[in-house]
Amino acid sequence: MSTTATTFPVTNPQARARLLDTIRFDMRGLVPVVSQQHDTREVLMLAWMNREAVEETLKTGKVCYYSRSRRELWRKGATSGQVQTLVDLRLDCDGDALLALVDQTGVACHTGRRNCFFFGLREGRLVKLTRPEVAPEELYGQ
Amino acid sequence: MSTTATTFPVTNPQARARLLDTIRFDMRGLVPVVSQQHDTREVLMLAWMNREAVEETLKTGKVCYYSRSRRELWRKGATSGQVQTLVDLRLDCDGDALLALVDQTGVACHTGRRNCFFFGLREGRLVKLTRPEVAPEELYGQ
Repeated sequence: MSTTATTFPVTNPQARARLLDTIRFDMRGLVPVVSQQHDTREVLMLAWMNREAVEETLKTGKVCYYSRSRRELWRKGATSGQVQTLVDLRLDCDGDALLALVDQTGVACHTGRRNCFFFGLREGRLVKLTRPEVAPEELYGQ
Repeated sequence: MSTTATTFPVTNPQARARLLDTIRFDMRGLVPVVSQQHDTREVLMLAWMNREAVEETLKTGKVCYYSRSRRELWRKGATSGQVQTLVDLRLDCDGDALLALVDQTGVACHTGRRNCFFFGLREGRLVKLTRPEVAPEELYGQ
């Protein structure tokens, strides 16, 4: 019942395997991952990891997803610099979802917004609830 | 850019359709939903909705998921009383994930814990980081 955080990265391969072997990946070999800013508790985004991405995330201490559209590892922030430093990685009760507590550098969303969940219903219309904090061109070039 | 919360439930069918028609359901007709306690910002669980579950959630103001194992609507708290009252429903930038801001009555997890994300690595071992607040038998009967 210790609540002392393990230091990430997790250098011990056996420790990584203990988490990896407990995750119930879906038929595609993927697990959904919620990322949350560890101190403010802002939910940043929802993305996916395969086994290799979880392993790399634990090993490096930087969050690495699996891009379903590009079908490859997606080292978050590799192009934009908006990396997510891992603070803790939690698995849920039935082993098929992860919660990554992170320290987000800059913004999580490719639109330049801090988090990806910015559409909401207001007065019957679907509206953008926040503005970009950074121009996407600044993140990804022209 | 208004941040005034729409009152839930959403009684206008056209307003519901505006959100429903923007969601990109997956090949199974499902979308992942993160639920978060609206005031403390605790991430409670990750579950799934189909179109009917989103519609019912908006209509009733109580969160209704789709159970992939039982293949039916899962009115959260119908048996246990641990309902989630909807405060806001957000869609993400690419339309394929939802964030439900809720007011959780009691506990979200079937184990009796407040939230489902209680497994973590500590000193190389996978451990339970929290204790149940309620005995599962109290929630679901013997």
